[in-house]
Amino acid sequence: MDKTSIIELKKVTIKKPVLVEGLPGIGLVGKLAADHLIKSSKAERIADVISPHFPHQVIMQKNGVMRMLKNRIYLIPGKKNDVLVLVGDVQAITSEAQYEVCGAILDWFEKKGGKTVITLGGYGTGKSPTTRRVFGSASHKTLISEYSKHGIVFGESRGSIIGVAGLLLGLGKLRGMNGACLMGETHGAYVDPKSAQAVLEALSKVLDMKIDISKIEERAKKGEQFMKHMERQAQKATEGALPEKNELSYIR
Amino acid sequence: MDKTSIIELKKVTIKKPVLVEGLPGIGLVGKLAADHLIKSSKAERIADVISPHFPHQVIMQKNGVMRMLKNRIYLIPGKKNDVLVLVGDVQAITSEAQYEVCGAILDWFEKKGGKTVITLGGYGTGKSPTTRRVFGSASHKTLISEYSKHGIVFGESRGSIIGVAGLLLGLGKLRGMNGACLMGETHGAYVDPKSAQAVLEALSKVLDMKIDISKIEERAKKGEQFMKHMERQAQKATEGALPEKNELSYIR
Amino acid sequence: MDKTSIIELKKVTIKKPVLVEGLPGIGLVGKLAADHLIKSSKAERIADVISPHFPHQVIMQKNGVMRMLKNRIYLIPGKKNDVLVLVGDVQAITSEAQYEVCGAILDWFEKKGGKTVITLGGYGTGKSPTTRRVFGSASHKTLISEYSKHGIVFGESRGSIIGVAGLLLGLGKLRGMNGACLMGETHGAYVDPKSAQAVLEALSKVLDMKIDISKIEERAKKGEQFMKHMERQAQKATEGALPEKNELSYIR
Amino acid sequence: MDKTSIIELKKVTIKKPVLVEGLPGIGLVGKLAADHLIKSSKAERIADVISPHFPHQVIMQKNGVMRMLKNRIYLIPGKKNDVLVLVGDVQAITSEAQYEVCGAILDWFEKKGGKTVITLGGYGTGKSPTTRRVFGSASHKTLISEYSKHGIVFGESRGSIIGVAGLLLGLGKLRGMNGACLMGETHGAYVDPKSAQAVLEALSKVLDMKIDISKIEERAKKGEQFMKHMERQAQKATEGALPEKNELSYIR
Repeated sequence: MDKTSIIELKKVTIKKPVLVEGLPGIGLVGKLAADHLIKSSKAERIADVISPHFPHQVIMQKNGVMRMLKNRIYLIPGKKNDVLVLVGDVQAITSEAQYEVCGAILDWFEKKGGKTVITLGGYGTGKSPTTRRVFGSASHKTLISEYSKHGIVFGESRGSIIGVAGLLLGLGKLRGMNGACLMGETHGAYVDPKSAQAVLEALSKVLDMKIDISKIEERAKKGEQFMKHMERQAQKATEGALPEKNELSYIR
Repeated sequence: MDKTSIIELKKVTIKKPVLVEGLPGIGLVGKLAADHLIKSSKAERIADVISPHFPHQVIMQKNGVMRMLKNRIYLIPGKKNDVLVLVGDVQAITSEAQYEVCGAILDWFEKKGGKTVITLGGYGTGKSPTTRRVFGSASHKTLISEYSKHGIVFGESRGSIIGVAGLLLGLGKLRGMNGACLMGETHGAYVDPKSAQAVLEALSKVLDMKIDISKIEERAKKGEQFMKHMERQAQKATEGALPEKNELSYIR
Repeated sequence: MDKTSIIELKKVTIKKPVLVEGLPGIGLVGKLAADHLIKSSKAERIADVISPHFPHQVIMQKNGVMRMLKNRIYLIPGKKNDVLVLVGDVQAITSEAQYEVCGAILDWFEKKGGKTVITLGGYGTGKSPTTRRVFGSASHKTLISEYSKHGIVFGESRGSIIGVAGLLLGLGKLRGMNGACLMGETHGAYVDPKSAQAVLEALSKVLDMKIDISKIEERAKKGEQFMKHMERQAQKATEGALPEKNELSYIR
Repeated sequence: MDKTSIIELKKVTIKKPVLVEGLPGIGLVGKLAADHLIKSSKAERIADVISPHFPHQVIMQKNGVMRMLKNRIYLIPGKKNDVLVLVGDVQAITSEAQYEVCGAILDWFEKKGGKTVITLGGYGTGKSPTTRRVFGSASHKTLISEYSKHGIVFGESRGSIIGVAGLLLGLGKLRGMNGACLMGETHGAYVDPKSAQAVLEALSKVLDMKIDISKIEERAKKGEQFMKHMERQAQKATEGALPEKNELSYIR
C-alpha cells in the first residue's frame, strides 16, 4: 500500500457538499469542534481515509478489537448544502505526505461535486486569552465580507497555517474551490474547549445550521487523553529512522 | 530495486494457510516464539522477503559467506490448515515502509488463499511479571469468544500495536481477512523467553498443533546477541541522513 | 499531489529565454538580487511552481487571504533574449526533492527553448568583507573568458554549491544547456544587500540589460523578516518525523 | 529527475566484464584502492552515474568549472575478462536510496554480460594494525577455496557490510551473479593507504592483472582532503530536514 485510500462505507447521494475539516492541531480546537459537530447532529459516517503516511500502528480498543489509525468522513444533511466533516486521529507529518493525503481527499471531494472547504483550528497566542475571537483567512478576497458578517476577524492573524487546515484550502484553490480557515483564539499549550465552542458558533452561522454546544467540555477531556497517548508513541517513534534500543522495545 | 519482493524458493501446494508472524519487537517475544515454532517442527523455508526498506547491509556469516537482511516464510503442514510462519532479522521502520512491506506480504498471502493472520508479540508492562498472561486484540468482535477459550485475555491491553504485528491485521481486515495479535506479558526492557513460551502455548491451542517448548531459553540467548549487533549498527546508521564523520567509517 | 507542478498564469511568447535564479540561500544574496531585478523592471509573473517538496503550509497575508508557499517565474522582455527570473519563498531540502524540483523546472524551461541558466548566490567567507567581489563557476570552460570580461572571478571559489543554484546548472548541462553561478562575496551569517548589489551589477553586464540598483537595502529588510518567520517554522517542523508535543501545537 | 541514471560516455565493446567497486567507506580503503587501480592502468572512463540520491550540490573546480557529484565507471581491458571499475565521490545514504542506486548499476552491468562483482573496503578493528590482512566474504561457499589461494582470509570477519560493498553482492546474487567483498585490515578512524595497498595486491592476484602499487600514499592525501570537505558539508546538511538558520546559510 503506497497511496492514501478513501474507502466508502455506504453509497449515499450528496447534495452540493461543503467540506468541514477538524483534525488534531493547536489546542485541539479544530478536532474538538469537528468531533462535537458530529456527535451533536445526525451525522452518518460514510468513508474512511487510510494512509501509509499515518503512523504504522493499530489502536487496541476496550472491547478487545483493534482498529487502524485513520481519518473519517461524516455526512450531515443540510438545507442547501450537505456538510461533509473530516475528522480523525492524526495528520500526516512530512510535506510530501501532507500533499499526498490532501490531494487524495480533494480528488474524492471534487468527484462529489464539492466546491467549498472550511477548515477549523486554533490560533495560538501564547497568552491565556480572556476573549475567544475567531480569526479567518480566506482563499479569495471576495469571500471576506460574507464571512465577516458572522463576526470572523480577517487580516489580524499572522504567520502560516501548517498542515491539512492550510493545504486543503491552498490546493483546493488551485482546483477552483474556495473557502476559509476559521481559527479560535487560544493559548496554544493546552486543550481549549472554549475556543472550540467559539469556532463552532461561528461555523454554525456560516453553514446556517443549528449546533448544540453543550457537553463540549466533557468531550474535550477524552480527546486530550487520546492525544497524550499518541504523543507518547510519537516521541518513541521519532527517536531515529532505524530501530534503536528503545524503539525496538515497543514494536510488538 | 524499489519494491519489496517475495522470492519463492520452491513451488509447494499450500492448504488454506494461516499466517503466523513473529518479527523483532518488545522483549523479542514474538521473534523467539516464531523462531522456536520453526525449529521445533518440520518447517520448510519456502520464500524470502527482500526489501529496500530493510537496512542496506549484508551479514558476514561464520562460514565465510554473506547473506542479505531479510524476512523468511516457512511452511508447516497442518491438519485443516497449513501454517505459514513469517520470521526475520528486522522490520522496516518508517510508516511508509511498513505499509509497503505489509502490503506486499498480504498480496502474496491472499494469492495463496489465506484468510487468517495471527501475529505474536510482547506486551510491555515496565514491571517484572510474576505471571505471564497472554493478551489478545482481535480483528473482529466475533472472534473473541473463540480465542478466549484458550485462555487469551481480551480487552485488558491498552495503547497501540506498532509495526508489522498491528498492520498485518489492520490492513488484512480491509481485504476481508481476520485474526488476532497474541501478546505475552513481559517487562519490555529485556529478552523474555518465558513470555515467548506462554505465547507459544496459547498459539498451540489456537492452531490445534503440538509445539515442543523445550530449549527455548537456550535459543533466546543467540537471538539476543544478534539483536544487539543490529542495534549497534542502527545507532550508527541513524546519526544523520547524509554521511557524517563517524558514519562514513562503517561503510565498507 | 506527488510531483512538482508548473502552473502557467498566462500564455506568452518567449524569445530565446535565459533563466536567472535567485532563491533563498547564503546571506539571502541571490534572493535579494533576483527580487530586486523583478521589482525594478517591467517583469510580468507568468508561472507558479507548486511542489509537495515545499513546506506543508500556507501564508496568512495582511489582506485576509492566504497563499501557498511557492516559487514564481517572471518574464522580462530583452533585446536578443527574454529573461525568465525564478524567485520564491523556499527551496526544497532533501536531495531527492531538490532533484525533482530542478528537473521539473528544467523540463519546462527546455520546452520554452531555453539554453542558458544563470544562478545567483552568496559566497560565504565567514569574514566581514571590505570588497564585494563576484565569483563565478561555469558549466563549461569555454564560457569563462566571456564572463570574466564583466569582472566575474573564476577559479578562486572553493567547495560546493548546494541547492538549486548548483543543481540547475549541473542537471542543465546534462541536457545540453550552459551557464554559470554568480556568487557575491559575503560574510554568510547575515543578510547582505551590498553583495546582492554587486551581483546585480555583474548580471546587468552579462545580460546587457540596465538594472536600477537603488532601494535594494530597503527591500532587504522585508526579505529578512520573512526568512526569520520561515526559519522559526522550520525549527518547529524539524523536531521529529511524527508529531511531538510541541509540534502538534502549531498545526492548526 | 527521480531515478539513478547511467550515462554512457562512449560506445565500447566489453568482454565478459568483472565489476570492481571502490567507493568511500572505512578508512577510505576501497576508494584509495580503486582510484589507484584506475590511475595506474590504461583505464578509460566510459560511464557516469548520476543520482537524485546523491547530495544536491555541485563541486567548484580550480579551473572555474563546476561538476556534479557522481560515481564513474572505468574500463580496463583484460585477458579473459575486461574489468569495470566503479568509483566516485559519495554513496547514497538511506536504505531505499542504496537499493535504488545498486539496482540501477546492476541492471546496467547485467546488460553488459557481467557475472562477477568484487567490492573493496576496509575492515575496521579499532586498533592500529601491525599486519594488513585482507578479509573476504563471498557470495557463495564454492568460491572460498579459489579466493583463499590468494591469501584472502574467510570466516574471520564479523558483523555486517554496510552500503554498496555489501548490497552489490547481495542483490547481485539474487540475479545469479557471484563474487566477494575484499576488506583490508585497518584501524577505521583514519585513512589507510597501506591497507589499500594490501587490498590491491590481493585484487591483482584475483584478477590475474599487474597493478603498480607505487605512489598510493601520495594519492591518499588528496582523497583525504576531499572527503573532509564532503563531511563538513554533510554535517551542515543533516542538521534538519527543513532549512534552519545555519542550513540556509550554505545554500547559494
